Amino acid sequence: MAKHRLGGQTVKLENPPCILSRATIVGKKEGQGPLGEYFDVVLEDDLWGEKTWEKAECRMYQEAAKMAITRAGKQPQDINYLFGGDLLNQIITANFAARTLGIPFFGLYGACSTLTESMSLGAMLISAGYADLVLCVTSSHFCTAERQYRFPLEMGTQRPPTAQWTVTGAGAFLLSNDMKPPYITHITTGKVIDYGITDTNNMGAAMAPAAAATIKAHFEDTQQGPDAYDLIVTGDLGWFGRELTIDLLKKEGYDISDRFIDCGCEIYSKDQDVHAGGSGCGCSAVVFGAYILRKMEEGVYKRILLLSTGALLSTTSCQQGESIPGIAHAITIDMDRG
Amino acid sequence: MAKHRLGGQTVKLENPPCILSRATIVGKKEGQGPLGEYFDVVLEDDLWGEKTWEKAECRMYQEAAKMAITRAGKQPQDINYLFGGDLLNQIITANFAARTLGIPFFGLYGACSTLTESMSLGAMLISAGYADLVLCVTSSHFCTAERQYRFPLEMGTQRPPTAQWTVTGAGAFLLSNDMKPPYITHITTGKVIDYGITDTNNMGAAMAPAAAATIKAHFEDTQQGPDAYDLIVTGDLGWFGRELTIDLLKKEGYDISDRFIDCGCEIYSKDQDVHAGGSGCGCSAVVFGAYILRKMEEGVYKRILLLSTGALLSTTSCQQGESIPGIAHAITIDMDRG
Repeated sequence: MAKHRLGGQTVKLENPPCILSRATIVGKKEGQGPLGEYFDVVLEDDLWGEKTWEKAECRMYQEAAKMAITRAGKQPQDINYLFGGDLLNQIITANFAARTLGIPFFGLYGACSTLTESMSLGAMLISAGYADLVLCVTSSHFCTAERQYRFPLEMGTQRPPTAQWTVTGAGAFLLSNDMKPPYITHITTGKVIDYGITDTNNMGAAMAPAAAATIKAHFEDTQQGPDAYDLIVTGDLGWFGRELTIDLLKKEGYDISDRFIDCGCEIYSKDQDVHAGGSGCGCSAVVFGAYILRKMEEGVYKRILLLSTGALLSTTSCQQGESIPGIAHAITIDMDRG
Repeated sequence: MAKHRLGGQTVKLENPPCILSRATIVGKKEGQGPLGEYFDVVLEDDLWGEKTWEKAECRMYQEAAKMAITRAGKQPQDINYLFGGDLLNQIITANFAARTLGIPFFGLYGACSTLTESMSLGAMLISAGYADLVLCVTSSHFCTAERQYRFPLEMGTQRPPTAQWTVTGAGAFLLSNDMKPPYITHITTGKVIDYGITDTNNMGAAMAPAAAATIKAHFEDTQQGPDAYDLIVTGDLGWFGRELTIDLLKKEGYDISDRFIDCGCEIYSKDQDVHAGGSGCGCSAVVFGAYILRKMEEGVYKRILLLSTGALLSTTSCQQGESIPGIAHAITIDMDRG
C-alpha cells in the first residue's frame, strides 16, 4: 500500500502544511448575522459596484485571494498553485479570477464541498514537496446561485421550510510548509453517496448521508472516534441535514451530537428568515475562515474535523428525473503538528 | 524551493507513475474517421439505448472507466481516487458516474483541459505515496454540448468555418506505481491566458495562446526545446488554433512545426464536414488513449509532450460580454522512466 495511506479513504500527511493566512468577504445579510464581527469585509450591497451579480462574485473571489496573499507578505507570483471553484456553470467565477491572479490553476467542481476538496489537494502537494505555497479559494453568491439553479429573483418565489439560503461570501486560504499552527494533518476523501432525494429544496437531506459516510470512514481509517476531536464541523447541511447526520451516525455507533456544528446553522440567526440555514461553497469557507480558525487561535478548540458538503445536481439532471447525490471531504485541522 | 519543483510551472516526479491500462469509447461519426479502427468501442447511435443524450454520455463515461479497471485486472474498490470531469453544467456526467463507481472522487472542471489536469494530479499523488491506483476519466458528447452551449440541435444552425465539432467520446486511464511503460515524468500546470477572443465559434484562437504559453513554460523550466520530444500533442485547437500556436511559439524562438499534431485535427477527415476540427474533453482523451499510446507501444514515438487545452466560458459569461480565456496543462509521457 502507498506509504502515506492509512487504508480506506484516508491519508496521513508526512509533513503537515499550515494555514498561513486567510481572508473572508461576505454580503450584507451575512454581516448582519451572529458572526458579522468576525468577517474581514462586509459588503454594503451584493453588486459591489459591478454591473452584474456574477461580476460581483468574481470580484469577491479575487479580493479575498489577494487579501490572503498580502497578509502573508507574499506576491501572486510566489504562489505555486491556485485550487478553486464555485457553483456557477463552468465555474466562471474561479476561472475569471484565476485569469487576473496569474497563478497556475487547477479548476475544481465539488459543489459546496469545494473548500475541503481544494485544501485536500493543496495540502497533499505541499506535504509531498511539489509546492511551497498553495492558495485555495471558493465562493458563492445568493443572487447568482438562485437565478441559475431555481428562479429569477424578480418572481419572489416562496420557499419551503427545508430550503436553505445561499451564502454570499468568498474565503481564501494560503497553505504553506511553514511551522505555524494550525496544521492540516489528515485527509479523508469522500465518495458520491445517493439516498434518492429528489427535492431540490431539501439539500440538507441530500448531503447528510455523504457527510455521515465520510465521518464514519474517517473514524474507521484513523481508528478514532468523536473523542479525538474538540469539534466536528460540516459545511452547509442546515438544521434538517444536521439532525439527519447525527441520526445516521448514531446508527453506526458514533454519537457526535455534543461536539458537532454546521456552518449553515451558525451563519444566520433564526430571525433572519433563512428557513433551514445557509448553503453554498462560501458558507463553510467564511465560517471556517473567520470564526472557527479564530476560536482555534484563541485556544477554544485544539483539533477539529472539517467537512465541506456538496449536493451534486444540475437543472438538467433534475429535469431528467435524476436524484441528488452528495459528497463530503474531511480534513483534520490541528494546532499541533502531530 | 519545494524539493520536486524545477521552478516556474513544472515539477519532476521522483517516482514516475505509469499508465497501466486505458479504454476509449466513441460515437458513430468518430468511428467513421481516420482513427476509427483504434477505438475500443464505437457506438452505433449517440443515445446508446438511453432516454437522453446526457444519460448516454454518462454511460460512456462509466463503461470506459470500468473497462480500464477490468483490463488491469482490478476492481473499483482497489482504486484509491477517481479524478474526472466533463463539459456539462455541474459536471453531471462525472458526478453521476462516480456515484456508480463508488471510488473516492475529486471532481474537476477544466473544460477541454480536464484530461491532463486529472492526470497531473493523479500522477503527483501516486508519485508521492498517497495512492497506488488513480483513475482519470473524461468525456464529451456532441449533442449534450451543442444544446448546452449553443442552440437546440433541431434548429440546424449553420456553423462558420472556424467552428469545431464536439467529439462524442470518453477516455479512461488507470495510473499506477507499476514498472510498465509508458511513464508520466514531468508536469507543467497552466495559467489562465486571455487574448480577448469573444467569438464562441473560434475556440481554437481562444486556446492557442494558452497552449503556446504552457509549452514555452515547459521548455524554459526543463531547459529543453522541441528536440527533446518525438511529438508534441495538443487537445483540440483545431486547424486554426494549431497554426496560431506554431506562429506564437516561433515568435518565442521555438519551432515545433515538424513534430506537432493536434487531436482535433486528427480525429476527423476533411470530408466529414467538421470545419476546423474536433473539440471537447473527449477529443484528446480518445485520440491519446487509442492512437498515440498505441504508436508509443509500437516504438514510433518514445517521448511526447501532451497538452489538453480548455476554453473557459459559459453562456452567462458570453452574454455578459466577457472574452474567452484559455488554459492548457502539459505532461511528459516517456517510454523510459528517466
